[in-house]
Amino acid sequence: MVIVIQCTDGVGLVAAISKVLANEECNIVSMREHVDQEENKFFARIVAENVTDPVGIEERLTKVLPANAIVKVNPLPEKNIVVLVTREYHCLSDILTRNHFKTLGAKVKCVIGNHPDLMNITKRFDIPFHLVSHENKSRETFENDLMQLISPYKPDYLVLAKFMRILSPGFISAFNMKIINIHHSFLPAFTGANPYRKAYIRGVKIIGATAHFVTSDLDEGPIITQQIIPVNHSFTLQDMVKAGRENETAALAKAMQLVFEDRVFVYNNKTVVFD
Amino acid sequence: MVIVIQCTDGVGLVAAISKVLANEECNIVSMREHVDQEENKFFARIVAENVTDPVGIEERLTKVLPANAIVKVNPLPEKNIVVLVTREYHCLSDILTRNHFKTLGAKVKCVIGNHPDLMNITKRFDIPFHLVSHENKSRETFENDLMQLISPYKPDYLVLAKFMRILSPGFISAFNMKIINIHHSFLPAFTGANPYRKAYIRGVKIIGATAHFVTSDLDEGPIITQQIIPVNHSFTLQDMVKAGRENETAALAKAMQLVFEDRVFVYNNKTVVFD
Amino acid sequence: MVIVIQCTDGVGLVAAISKVLANEECNIVSMREHVDQEENKFFARIVAENVTDPVGIEERLTKVLPANAIVKVNPLPEKNIVVLVTREYHCLSDILTRNHFKTLGAKVKCVIGNHPDLMNITKRFDIPFHLVSHENKSRETFENDLMQLISPYKPDYLVLAKFMRILSPGFISAFNMKIINIHHSFLPAFTGANPYRKAYIRGVKIIGATAHFVTSDLDEGPIITQQIIPVNHSFTLQDMVKAGRENETAALAKAMQLVFEDRVFVYNNKTVVFD
Amino acid sequence: MVIVIQCTDGVGLVAAISKVLANEECNIVSMREHVDQEENKFFARIVAENVTDPVGIEERLTKVLPANAIVKVNPLPEKNIVVLVTREYHCLSDILTRNHFKTLGAKVKCVIGNHPDLMNITKRFDIPFHLVSHENKSRETFENDLMQLISPYKPDYLVLAKFMRILSPGFISAFNMKIINIHHSFLPAFTGANPYRKAYIRGVKIIGATAHFVTSDLDEGPIITQQIIPVNHSFTLQDMVKAGRENETAALAKAMQLVFEDRVFVYNNKTVVFD
Repeated sequence: MVIVIQCTDGVGLVAAISKVLANEECNIVSMREHVDQEENKFFARIVAENVTDPVGIEERLTKVLPANAIVKVNPLPEKNIVVLVTREYHCLSDILTRNHFKTLGAKVKCVIGNHPDLMNITKRFDIPFHLVSHENKSRETFENDLMQLISPYKPDYLVLAKFMRILSPGFISAFNMKIINIHHSFLPAFTGANPYRKAYIRGVKIIGATAHFVTSDLDEGPIITQQIIPVNHSFTLQDMVKAGRENETAALAKAMQLVFEDRVFVYNNKTVVFD
Repeated sequence: MVIVIQCTDGVGLVAAISKVLANEECNIVSMREHVDQEENKFFARIVAENVTDPVGIEERLTKVLPANAIVKVNPLPEKNIVVLVTREYHCLSDILTRNHFKTLGAKVKCVIGNHPDLMNITKRFDIPFHLVSHENKSRETFENDLMQLISPYKPDYLVLAKFMRILSPGFISAFNMKIINIHHSFLPAFTGANPYRKAYIRGVKIIGATAHFVTSDLDEGPIITQQIIPVNHSFTLQDMVKAGRENETAALAKAMQLVFEDRVFVYNNKTVVFD
Repeated sequence: MVIVIQCTDGVGLVAAISKVLANEECNIVSMREHVDQEENKFFARIVAENVTDPVGIEERLTKVLPANAIVKVNPLPEKNIVVLVTREYHCLSDILTRNHFKTLGAKVKCVIGNHPDLMNITKRFDIPFHLVSHENKSRETFENDLMQLISPYKPDYLVLAKFMRILSPGFISAFNMKIINIHHSFLPAFTGANPYRKAYIRGVKIIGATAHFVTSDLDEGPIITQQIIPVNHSFTLQDMVKAGRENETAALAKAMQLVFEDRVFVYNNKTVVFD
Repeated sequence: MVIVIQCTDGVGLVAAISKVLANEECNIVSMREHVDQEENKFFARIVAENVTDPVGIEERLTKVLPANAIVKVNPLPEKNIVVLVTREYHCLSDILTRNHFKTLGAKVKCVIGNHPDLMNITKRFDIPFHLVSHENKSRETFENDLMQLISPYKPDYLVLAKFMRILSPGFISAFNMKIINIHHSFLPAFTGANPYRKAYIRGVKIIGATAHFVTSDLDEGPIITQQIIPVNHSFTLQDMVKAGRENETAALAKAMQLVFEDRVFVYNNKTVVFD
């Protein structure tokens, strides 16, 4: 069973936490702990065995920790997610496959596309696909339409699997640190649109992909993971896009795994990742 | 023997080049060729055996190629370089070691520092060290002092091995595409000063180093090679700097090898690298 | 249009080849050439534009090259493949997805499994699935059954996507250098069965995957590509297997791309790969 | 201050350890903990601040831990090492440079070579070099000569920086898990002599280097770290050796850093590495 803790740092935190667990005869199988000394923040992820009373342990941990502590014992063992897409298939296909074979660590409740292109592949996996066009609509109306569709699913996370619309701060704040995006560049290089074109023109020798939480500050949210691939002069722009796809798929898959296994903590627009 | 060619593209270039070589009974051991179709540029690097008349071949190749062709048969087999440094030892030590064991592919004529810190290590390898302080001097005077020291050595390349002064366009133009710099970030992310601090604050998961030719446009010159290393939340700023050093050393070493072996072609602020 | 050539080395080969192309007014867009000097072998892959008479060019190239030359102008632009599987889904799903979106560079004619587990996913993509059990059968009968199913499809390549049966030399010789396998280790480390278990026990810090052509010498065929991922003490055997899956999928995908784009030449139990 | 602990696993270990530290008002800055459940072993590395009584803490920790516990509070902050070499300079030069600039995390007491080739570079750094030829000598005599030279330096570790002699079990047992070797292959592939030749003949696409502790079982000791570099058909054997050197240097440097910072635990012919 997983236990995650995030609070102000202080002397004796590990002792207090581990004493609670020892009193319950829980065995600590693995423990990752991090203190950000500049920010005076404490983070821990514990895998414990023999946890018979998770609710009780959560209460007892909360009592021995600083007032602001966030404690979760056995946070949702399987998350529900809604996936937003536009036209590119690679990230979505990977998600659908993992979902189908139950290796995603989450359950895809539905896929929403602002184009119909990916309806076919989604339906092949018996997952509902909703088409919500953004055309001839204000952003507000578009996002209201999205929200109405999403809400009944009560998703734990939204995954933007190459969803090419910019979301408003209002929409984002409704899913604070619950929206995972894959950006097709090695952020903070090449923010904004057309990163592959920019990379191509700049003549870089490595291109990247960045999975991050979405905040109202475009492309500036906390980074979960980054991956890279080498490129060279023989790559046309189209080759870069193609090579980048593999990289995007892998980076998003990795980020989802980390988040769904409760390995990622957010603070100060950064992440602590116990991988 | 190495032959490098750069010219406007056209039908029959490879035939024309290889016919010249075949007529001389030269054997082509390896040939790398690239055409940038957007720019209509042709690049080739040929390793040939049995080249008895390099000067004659260069003439005959020039005759069969477009007027603007740059042709070099057996370009300087060993380059002379001058290394500029400030205080950090890691890149310089690596250069001095390779120079000492004759695996650098170039000969270090001297090291120039704007601080005395690296005089000791340089002298241990019997290489001249010149101290040229930038203090209490205009940039013009500083660069004149540098130039006076450098000129007699007639270097083929200047290597900025963590040289922390910005050079003026005038100085740079005197060594057009002959100055190799190592920038301690994954350009174009984190241009300018303190890239590690910026990377630390941004919470990136990978940091990079970029070896590039210096142009008057700061940190915007043609990229020769880039290397990366993963980092995580446990890295303090100081840890990032430390880890980055290994990366910088490796990237600069790789770039020097590529340049000194005549594997790098520059055009359009990009490079073609036949690695 | 792609042109591939493999023959004994000699002076003037590139000249002879490029002259043929120049005479036809073909433009060489890119050319990769390699000579194995120990073995006296010549390999070239040319991408040419403006090829109006491929059959004629193949004839003219054959005439100017040594007697043993293998020349292919525009080798099958799209290959047909048959995929053999057992129970693990990850490589097959990736192949089916790429096939579905026409980014595989080949067409999957059918999938053959010795277990029924992957019938469902295959059918979701409207690809025929044939179950050929190996149980209660001699290897000869099993392979005859396979062969009868495969033959009508006339595949250019067989892809073993985690097919866990050993094939006999007889079967393999019927598809000489036409069977691509993914081995779940960094060959030649951990040949044979259970490589992850062996890697786990040995305490390695990196695990690999190797895509190779199958020869009668088990796990000893020519290597097409290898990929690795870091592991550490926290990985259980099961974690290694799971992490390895991503690696296997990526390595096999890369190998297929290289082979299907005619970038791979085999000789002497090695490959030349113009990637 | 670093605290390392290795013992049989049990319920309440982390609680017991952290209570001791909390009682002393020590703050736990970072804690890495691992349990091998199959082997029932517990490992921890703690960085604590405000440790005023290390000897007392070591005693108190020992009291609350299982009988077989190995506990070290502030293990030698700077290790002493003796470096053994043969002829290749790359690893030694790197060690000497880091030692000179005090970034090795250890102090090089002397270098011993069985050939004189590296005497010059060693002396440039003012480090004693001892020549101990193995010629015209039994292995026993050779190792006695080595031992007599090494003993007075009381080294914490011996580093074999491309030392090309096989050491006897007797010699090795005198430095149990204290000898760090760099093997120029991706173990367990290509054990024994001439790994690059074997890799070249096999046509691998990646070559590796393995830093490991030396045991009497040649090339079979616990692996500390492994690194790899891609190679391809264009690499001659000599190119592989040259490329491999960079890799060996980097892998050995990394392994030394990990060991000297007390991040490596050995058990069961494997390592736990808290990197």
